[in-house]
Amino acid sequence: MTSPQPSPIADALRLPNGPVDLTAVETDAAPGFDGAKADGKAALTAMGDELADLQERLWAERTVGSERRVLLVLQGMDTSGKGGVLRHTIGLVDPQGVRITSFKAPTEEEKRHDFLWRIEKGLPDAGYIGVFDRSHYEDVLIARVRGFADPDEIERRYGAINDFEARLVDDGFSIIKCMLHISADEQKARLVERLANPEKHWKYNPGDLDERALWPAYREAYEVALERTSTDVAPWHVVPSDKKWFRNLAVGQILLDTLRGLDLQWPAADFDVAAETERLAEEDPVQ
Amino acid sequence: MTSPQPSPIADALRLPNGPVDLTAVETDAAPGFDGAKADGKAALTAMGDELADLQERLWAERTVGSERRVLLVLQGMDTSGKGGVLRHTIGLVDPQGVRITSFKAPTEEEKRHDFLWRIEKGLPDAGYIGVFDRSHYEDVLIARVRGFADPDEIERRYGAINDFEARLVDDGFSIIKCMLHISADEQKARLVERLANPEKHWKYNPGDLDERALWPAYREAYEVALERTSTDVAPWHVVPSDKKWFRNLAVGQILLDTLRGLDLQWPAADFDVAAETERLAEEDPVQ
Repeated sequence: MTSPQPSPIADALRLPNGPVDLTAVETDAAPGFDGAKADGKAALTAMGDELADLQERLWAERTVGSERRVLLVLQGMDTSGKGGVLRHTIGLVDPQGVRITSFKAPTEEEKRHDFLWRIEKGLPDAGYIGVFDRSHYEDVLIARVRGFADPDEIERRYGAINDFEARLVDDGFSIIKCMLHISADEQKARLVERLANPEKHWKYNPGDLDERALWPAYREAYEVALERTSTDVAPWHVVPSDKKWFRNLAVGQILLDTLRGLDLQWPAADFDVAAETERLAEEDPVQ
Repeated sequence: MTSPQPSPIADALRLPNGPVDLTAVETDAAPGFDGAKADGKAALTAMGDELADLQERLWAERTVGSERRVLLVLQGMDTSGKGGVLRHTIGLVDPQGVRITSFKAPTEEEKRHDFLWRIEKGLPDAGYIGVFDRSHYEDVLIARVRGFADPDEIERRYGAINDFEARLVDDGFSIIKCMLHISADEQKARLVERLANPEKHWKYNPGDLDERALWPAYREAYEVALERTSTDVAPWHVVPSDKKWFRNLAVGQILLDTLRGLDLQWPAADFDVAAETERLAEEDPVQ
């Protein structure tokens, strides 16, 4: 099996090896896409049928024992649009074949285990597109910024994550990692909007501003995490996300590229089609 | 809180009390809806925004401690279109707020427990729309037809189901039960179509014809189950499902009615909005 070429968008967003400087990534750009907002929205909608078709093939494969599945990891600062991607991009495919796992602050029970314990439990079964809304990366992001773990433990985790993800890939996972990258100004505008709209107050938490004040520390933590954990089998994509339409389109395109790369075929019948057809034609009347 | 009037569709499909005769229900009708296929599809699409809005309100409520949630139970013979409802109707709402649980033949572990054990584990959390693709009703349907349990145990289960569902409603569940009702002829046409299309072979199982031969026994088992378990707090709807567009529309309409009946409000802010707005405006520059 040879994988098709990645699309221009996926190609442009895939993180190259080496040191990462997020300040050098324009958050309001639309790399790899020639078109304006309306074109981008139309392009995403146009993907829907193929995404749904490929997802159904992935789902069908599991009925004949395939272990393949997709895991999309979404990371980003508050308001970067993880929920928007779930609604607008993942919303394009059949909900039967999707498993979304949201990772909040760990519970007391989760804290008593290794950081990957709860992650394992949230993995998608064969045939599914799993989506992580936040993930094991929180354990090297907020955990590093807030000092929730010792530096030695944080250091250990980068390698543990790479080992974990390599094992998943060996087990049939295709892993897509997307960092939704917004500017501090864009986050401010989105928080202002939430505060101005009573229908969005439930999304706001005063703690959001405390996290925001740590923006440079988060940026550094992301840069380290991206550099240390972008591997050949599970590379990172940095998705400019000030433009919501481009963010949704870009994640959709990377997902589509990934599914195309699996060369998914409809399973062949494991029964005698002609015999079954005859049996159905000749059955006694059913009332 | 007063519930709004049910729509004409929901009103027409709600099972009246008393003995049930499924042969008297036209499977290719579209009761409560004046319009053809194109109108029905347009009506379903037109529901999307309101369904999504109400679902987001349900989801938002959980952030302030609400225990409310919706459980949609889908039952029906093979090919009746449970998967189609999931794709076309449930696909209209944000996948973040949906939990789909499919019940297959019970595992050995599941068989060692009471029949409701695995059902409890599949229930949606607060804020979710949960969907059961098959359900605890299999334990009085196939279990009755195939004799997987003694008649005494089957008899006990009707009451156990009613007690179980009443408890769920007390706990904040709104339960919607839909039997997707197709004719034997329509099932035959759909099986013929599956056999004729290699892309659908994976959906076909020779065992489907063995179940089909038991059609009258299944009809009787459904009639008994519907009569015994249609209660004021969790009534059944019999959805004529030969017309796929009507089936999808009808389930969407009943779901919409249910969400409207919850009188869902956006949660009020539990913080000082003015103070937070000022804090955001006066923050130090973030880079």
